[in-house]
Amino acid sequence: MTLDEDLEAAAGTGGRLPTGEVHPALRRARAWLSRVAEPGTVDFWRFVDAVGPVAAAQQLRGGRAPERIRTLVGARAGQDETLADLRRAEQCGARLIVPEDDEWPALPLHALTVAVSGEPDDPRYQSDRTTAPVPPVALWARGSARLDELVERSVAIVGSRASTAYGEHVAAELGHRLGERGWTVVSGGAFGIDAAAHRGAMAAEAPTLAVLACGVDRPYPAAHGALFARIAETGLLVSEWPPGCAPLRHRFLVRNRLIAALTRGTVVVEAAARSGAQATAKRARRLGREVLVVPGPVTSAMSVGCHELLRDPDIQATLVASVEHVIEAVGGIGVDLAAPPDRPTGPRDGLSDLASRVLDACPVRTGVGPERLAAVAGCDVLEVLRVLPALELADLVQWTGTGWRLAPPPREAVTRGG
Amino acid sequence: MTLDEDLEAAAGTGGRLPTGEVHPALRRARAWLSRVAEPGTVDFWRFVDAVGPVAAAQQLRGGRAPERIRTLVGARAGQDETLADLRRAEQCGARLIVPEDDEWPALPLHALTVAVSGEPDDPRYQSDRTTAPVPPVALWARGSARLDELVERSVAIVGSRASTAYGEHVAAELGHRLGERGWTVVSGGAFGIDAAAHRGAMAAEAPTLAVLACGVDRPYPAAHGALFARIAETGLLVSEWPPGCAPLRHRFLVRNRLIAALTRGTVVVEAAARSGAQATAKRARRLGREVLVVPGPVTSAMSVGCHELLRDPDIQATLVASVEHVIEAVGGIGVDLAAPPDRPTGPRDGLSDLASRVLDACPVRTGVGPERLAAVAGCDVLEVLRVLPALELADLVQWTGTGWRLAPPPREAVTRGG
Repeated sequence: MTLDEDLEAAAGTGGRLPTGEVHPALRRARAWLSRVAEPGTVDFWRFVDAVGPVAAAQQLRGGRAPERIRTLVGARAGQDETLADLRRAEQCGARLIVPEDDEWPALPLHALTVAVSGEPDDPRYQSDRTTAPVPPVALWARGSARLDELVERSVAIVGSRASTAYGEHVAAELGHRLGERGWTVVSGGAFGIDAAAHRGAMAAEAPTLAVLACGVDRPYPAAHGALFARIAETGLLVSEWPPGCAPLRHRFLVRNRLIAALTRGTVVVEAAARSGAQATAKRARRLGREVLVVPGPVTSAMSVGCHELLRDPDIQATLVASVEHVIEAVGGIGVDLAAPPDRPTGPRDGLSDLASRVLDACPVRTGVGPERLAAVAGCDVLEVLRVLPALELADLVQWTGTGWRLAPPPREAVTRGG
Repeated sequence: MTLDEDLEAAAGTGGRLPTGEVHPALRRARAWLSRVAEPGTVDFWRFVDAVGPVAAAQQLRGGRAPERIRTLVGARAGQDETLADLRRAEQCGARLIVPEDDEWPALPLHALTVAVSGEPDDPRYQSDRTTAPVPPVALWARGSARLDELVERSVAIVGSRASTAYGEHVAAELGHRLGERGWTVVSGGAFGIDAAAHRGAMAAEAPTLAVLACGVDRPYPAAHGALFARIAETGLLVSEWPPGCAPLRHRFLVRNRLIAALTRGTVVVEAAARSGAQATAKRARRLGREVLVVPGPVTSAMSVGCHELLRDPDIQATLVASVEHVIEAVGGIGVDLAAPPDRPTGPRDGLSDLASRVLDACPVRTGVGPERLAAVAGCDVLEVLRVLPALELADLVQWTGTGWRLAPPPREAVTRGG
């Protein structure tokens, strides 16, 4: 069946089969969209978001899309490699995850949806693709883990490719200890700090996630073929680019926003002055994520970027010297922070003022979106997004599929101590 | 002449000879006071401050001092080693500097005078001697430099005695570069970081200041005899304790407040967990001084204390990785910060909001004290004390001997760039 016939069949179905499953043609539409425009393009994402993936593909194929969008896609509108892409994915054990799937990491990526709404309408004033906070239109994933579960409790560890033995030791140690405690280590699969972090996590038999800037069937760097195969066994390789895509230089910068968005915090282990790891840290901060930085000798060029981050008042980075420091910064309330002993504790004890306000803003029955919670709690949407995962981990709130509400109270009130 | 005869002769003279010089009996009184009570005792300093040194010594010798003060001095009230102390000082090239001397570093030590006024009246609630912010009653000084000039632009470098090669390298490098730029390095003369900092400064042919916790004639550690002799050649060894006094353990903690008070900021280079260097840093912060911390490998036990300081939100420590970072933090406005090029600059350009308010609070003629400036500028006395040295270095204010006033305008307005 041609792409156009397939799209036609899916049009008007709402993207679902009668069984409720995602329509294969919708997945094919998103596979096509993931190839015809570079990820991170504000207006392209807005167009797909506004009309839906099937209509977006149809309008582009039929030349009926707005001129600005047609210009972005160009001659690729007439091409179709979807069947080949989906076949190549299948051959390497990969799949295409779309926002309509349960597995889509909707909550972490919502920070990008919120942030992209702040981009101006006029493309001349929009952020460059390498810095724009744009959600992905789909994610190619290779491996056995479920993406949404993998990133629920996750921390990014990023750093220099030209790392020192010190940096690699620290990254491996942090990866290992985070893995031991049930945290997913997310990184970019590169030489140096990234590889040490992935390896540390796997040494603790914990799944790890590598977010790539190229096709998941042709991992880069090539010397990491065995590493990537091992990551895929228990964790995931994820990319916005379809199979076969090359790791072009600018794609690493575009990719970095996903590492920042998918995780609760980013740990920078070693970074040279003005490096990519610093850029990832800044993106993490703008998305309301924790920026955690491992210091090093002031005599090491590979720690200059780390120290710059720690000196930058805009970043509000936290110095971390141990896994306990990392977990203290990203951990869930009541889960990762030990409650003071010997006094009766309720689940609300230990909540920050902000978390209490967000909790009070949650309705009992019908779930509401983070924007609504922010309005009621009197805070930023990004702040709401920062505390929701912790409230959920503490079983205080529930995601209904369309919004957040209070979790039902436990059967019996449990108090400790006294 | 006996001490009591000498005191009798000085009583009623206001502590001055007809020539205006400090009365030798006043110096002898303070020499006596420096031995009969341990430095850092709130009530003892308050008593001397209230009645003056000559009357304080007379009342204690005659048993007429308040009971609480007599208890502090005990049997030592009947002893007199002043002539021997002054002779031993002279023999090793030392002298006694008293608050009545021009050389007394009145402005830096004023932070202690302000801080001690916050101590409660009831001795049961006063700070322990090892933490109380009490000004010294006198300072024994060995060496050729003038103390007030030496500390005018000074930075403390402190750290572990059990330092690593990394820490010693950094301390020596910072000491050297600060010395090259005309800054005095102040430290405690101990093994490890202290010694490396002093040596670095002297390698740049800059005078350096060691504040000791024992007599200046018997430096501790003994292995630093040659180092101390070199420091005295161009810089100073300073102590609150009279010649011959031993470096008792608690005296190091009492001494630390002087290192913090005399300098614009304290750089901690290496420190173990819960160490003396951390204590000095905390005292510096309480006196309104900058706390600057050099990070190190997170794998080094000697950097744990540094990283604790950088993680402590109460300390508000600044990470420093180079001498430029240090000077940026402690430097005078318009002197150590490069003005942006290519625009006309006046001396007031680049002043912080606080500095501008303090400057505006300064009268044109009669100098006023920091408390008055704080009241007019609407800020803390400690904040005033923090910005005054920078305003003075920028030639914007003048110390009249009794207070601060605006400096007369320069003959000709100088503008740069344009």
